[in-house]
Amino acid sequence: MLSTMQDSPLLISRILHHGTTVHGDGEVITWTGDEPRHTPYAALAGRVAQLAAGLRELGITGDQRVGTFQWNNVEHMEAYLAVPSMGAVLHTINIRLFPEQVTYVVNHAEDHVVLVDATLLPLFAHVLPSCETVRHVVVVGADPHAELDFEPPSGVRVHHYEQLLEGRPTSFDWPELDERCAAAMCYTSGTTGNPKGVVYSHRSITLHSMQVGMTDAMGLEPGDLSLAIVPMFHAMSWGLPYAALTMGASLIMPDRFLQPEPLVEMISRLRPTKAAAVPTIWQGVLQHLDAAPADVSSLREVLVGGAACPPSLMRTFEERFGISIIHGWGMTETSPLGSIARPPATVSGEQRWAYRESQGRTTAGVQARIIGDDDEELPRDGKSVGEIQVRGPWVTGDYYDPHGLERAENAAKFHDGWLRTGDVGTISPDGYLRLTDRAKDVIKSGGEWISSVELENLVMANAAVSEAMVVGVPDEKWSERPLVAVVLREGAQASPEELRESLRGSIPDWQLPEHWTFIEEAPKTSVGKFDKKRLRQSHTEGTLTVHHLR
Amino acid sequence: MLSTMQDSPLLISRILHHGTTVHGDGEVITWTGDEPRHTPYAALAGRVAQLAAGLRELGITGDQRVGTFQWNNVEHMEAYLAVPSMGAVLHTINIRLFPEQVTYVVNHAEDHVVLVDATLLPLFAHVLPSCETVRHVVVVGADPHAELDFEPPSGVRVHHYEQLLEGRPTSFDWPELDERCAAAMCYTSGTTGNPKGVVYSHRSITLHSMQVGMTDAMGLEPGDLSLAIVPMFHAMSWGLPYAALTMGASLIMPDRFLQPEPLVEMISRLRPTKAAAVPTIWQGVLQHLDAAPADVSSLREVLVGGAACPPSLMRTFEERFGISIIHGWGMTETSPLGSIARPPATVSGEQRWAYRESQGRTTAGVQARIIGDDDEELPRDGKSVGEIQVRGPWVTGDYYDPHGLERAENAAKFHDGWLRTGDVGTISPDGYLRLTDRAKDVIKSGGEWISSVELENLVMANAAVSEAMVVGVPDEKWSERPLVAVVLREGAQASPEELRESLRGSIPDWQLPEHWTFIEEAPKTSVGKFDKKRLRQSHTEGTLTVHHLR
Repeated sequence: MLSTMQDSPLLISRILHHGTTVHGDGEVITWTGDEPRHTPYAALAGRVAQLAAGLRELGITGDQRVGTFQWNNVEHMEAYLAVPSMGAVLHTINIRLFPEQVTYVVNHAEDHVVLVDATLLPLFAHVLPSCETVRHVVVVGADPHAELDFEPPSGVRVHHYEQLLEGRPTSFDWPELDERCAAAMCYTSGTTGNPKGVVYSHRSITLHSMQVGMTDAMGLEPGDLSLAIVPMFHAMSWGLPYAALTMGASLIMPDRFLQPEPLVEMISRLRPTKAAAVPTIWQGVLQHLDAAPADVSSLREVLVGGAACPPSLMRTFEERFGISIIHGWGMTETSPLGSIARPPATVSGEQRWAYRESQGRTTAGVQARIIGDDDEELPRDGKSVGEIQVRGPWVTGDYYDPHGLERAENAAKFHDGWLRTGDVGTISPDGYLRLTDRAKDVIKSGGEWISSVELENLVMANAAVSEAMVVGVPDEKWSERPLVAVVLREGAQASPEELRESLRGSIPDWQLPEHWTFIEEAPKTSVGKFDKKRLRQSHTEGTLTVHHLR
Repeated sequence: MLSTMQDSPLLISRILHHGTTVHGDGEVITWTGDEPRHTPYAALAGRVAQLAAGLRELGITGDQRVGTFQWNNVEHMEAYLAVPSMGAVLHTINIRLFPEQVTYVVNHAEDHVVLVDATLLPLFAHVLPSCETVRHVVVVGADPHAELDFEPPSGVRVHHYEQLLEGRPTSFDWPELDERCAAAMCYTSGTTGNPKGVVYSHRSITLHSMQVGMTDAMGLEPGDLSLAIVPMFHAMSWGLPYAALTMGASLIMPDRFLQPEPLVEMISRLRPTKAAAVPTIWQGVLQHLDAAPADVSSLREVLVGGAACPPSLMRTFEERFGISIIHGWGMTETSPLGSIARPPATVSGEQRWAYRESQGRTTAGVQARIIGDDDEELPRDGKSVGEIQVRGPWVTGDYYDPHGLERAENAAKFHDGWLRTGDVGTISPDGYLRLTDRAKDVIKSGGEWISSVELENLVMANAAVSEAMVVGVPDEKWSERPLVAVVLREGAQASPEELRESLRGSIPDWQLPEHWTFIEEAPKTSVGKFDKKRLRQSHTEGTLTVHHLR
């Protein structure tokens, strides 16, 4: 028996219509380094239609891919809306990939048109000759009357973004698509092997946007002014661009001004109420505020994800600035919000921190389970440790593989219809996920597991330590033992012995690490996470000075 | 190009799983007149599985209909979850329909099993002989050892609810259904003609539940204790039962204790944070609090709908108790939440009331437009008045009509894929819906429209007036003129002249009504709305004493 409900698809063109009419007074505010550029949502509607018409003019039809090589700015937002709404597929290219990886993803996605920020043109020009399918490059933000210092390869035409839009109609007859069609794609940063493409649908993006507005998730509100620091080429800026239009929240886009100093200036001048970024950004902001105090009090809540946030950082922001740093957990494959660490309403005081430091509860759309070594589901008892697997309507069930060349490799990432997250942890009886490590970073010492993340957090709680990274290194007797790489705070001093002693009592003695090294800077991936592969490599190559304690 | 997202259907069995695991410490609290009965969500899971097994045993297969003739209580909640999750269709029968309407809806839906509260058994026994498809009656809440004072017609078997569940397995292999399948059905109360069936899908209910948890809608939060006064047989209790499990909010179910006195006792003892009910309930609560003060301060927000709330009532609750009465707009056909009157974040003080008194903004899932007499869309200028039409994934596109007998009649309720709401009003440039009247209640006077609702609100703002109803009555010169029927507050006095004078200045003089009548009680429909049809009828029959002013 069918329902009588309307067969009304969940489409990005509907989000566009809602945001630009019901919330037409919301706006995108793009930072230019010294001034904000304001674009009201009501005005966005016309420009998005013009962009779609311009892309049609360049030959974009059907589900062809349009790449973006851009910072977070209003033009990138226009592409976010125009490309999927017209039925094409938005491919947000991660500008921080290695050049050969950029070439790989552009060719793999078969991008026909790429929108490139003028400030990123030199970087993109470098890879363009090896991009096989690109026919048009549209340069955003360049002076249309000045000559571009850029010679495209033959067969590639170059356009100015504003000229592409100019004079075109400000309305577009958005097609009524199947909600399961591809809307956007994003490649994982691929610490091993080639990047893998996750293809979001109109449906998954719409559902995820609703989740961002739900009280048990990010709780984005109408009238919120949300600062999207997390790049639009990184898991769709955690869904903020679409969610902001869905909820009637305004967006602050920092463009390329992501260093602590301009970020702090932007925050104190534009007064966002919410923000989203990886923990290392807030670490930098805090250090800058220590040196040059500024008013960041407009921020009420800050969503962090991509890596566990050092508890000490969360407490400092809460105590000094009244800003709640909220842990989210997810990945490109989960759109990305999978769970959020809001404590139960019944818990108060210091107890809240145990929940705040977890990865939180999944929202109703995402199911999580933990699977042990023997592929059996483990109990939700807060103790049993296994691989976290998730499923749900905004969780990927595969990777983009148009020619079926990576089938076996991709299949290994899924288990019985569930995504294998590669994260290891527990689920408590009251539903809280606690990650103890990445499956590949867990240190297997004498048959027991040591969490590299837990060790890092404990070491980073030491006032002398700015950052700490832990990897497993081979050990004849124990198979693996932890190596701790420490970045000391400027001017601070601490010996390996002192650092180890400060851990005693917090972990079982057998876990106390004996291998320590001091480094100038922690190696990070393109998305700001600790790059443990590089640390392991340095260790293997013998370029680290390691202190071995007894 | 298809997305790589999982094909994960939006199902009520998923809501059940989420609510009873991640939020297993939430609970349903059923009021018994003097004590609460607590059922933790974790315990609900097993009982819901047992109910499904029991219904299978009674022969329920496929999409057969299971009727409920129940108050708001935990057993009704169990039916809400078990019936759709097993693939059958829940039919919530409105116990306040006239007996011949109950017979009509049971036969129209072809209910095979009906769950009946013991306290409602006498009422249901009266209609059962004329119900053609019912084979089993399951009595809820009766003493299993006492004889039921009830003789079923031949061919109908009677069961005790707890005996039906007893000893059955506490898990059930919920089928993986198509999300567009029917999950539940609800008949409109049908002020004209037969009731019409709206059939909700798993998809529409899931999406609506997410909306209830969104900050721009009801904003239901994990840990909220929500009092569902609106009956579960009335537009699915405005979606609260499913939304509570989705969000991890607890539910207070008042059973049959809906009079002001027990409601106030329940509120002061159980301390709900949120509640939902039609305005007349709150009018009664206020009168009771005037006579017998009690602590209702736990309530933060109260959602009202089903009829416009008198602004004076909203202000009184806010000023005296700190309780925000929030206007929602919707109907059985819209699941029911279509829009909610939360003012823009930028508006403060007295200005907020203009927004609070509107019907609010639609959320992202619902699109609204206003259509004029010539079927043209009117501008969103806050002035152009026309019929409100809506569409969206939780808006009905038809009525249940299994044999195609009502096709023409049903088609008239839709226009080009949009639902004709029968409400007349405006949409402002910032997206706020303001209803001025029901299409059929608008008073057409000399070619101009007079809103009966606006007049009612103005008359009710007078301290002497408890309730006021306005209908159009025939007029030779003007075609129609308003007739005001007034219920005076106990002990209060006011003449028609005084009442008319108090309106001067608030509306154009030509709208000032000249026909007035005083009544003991306002006639109401089964769902507590003013029954204007009965007032018009009394006027036609000449049973009212009407004062005609000059």
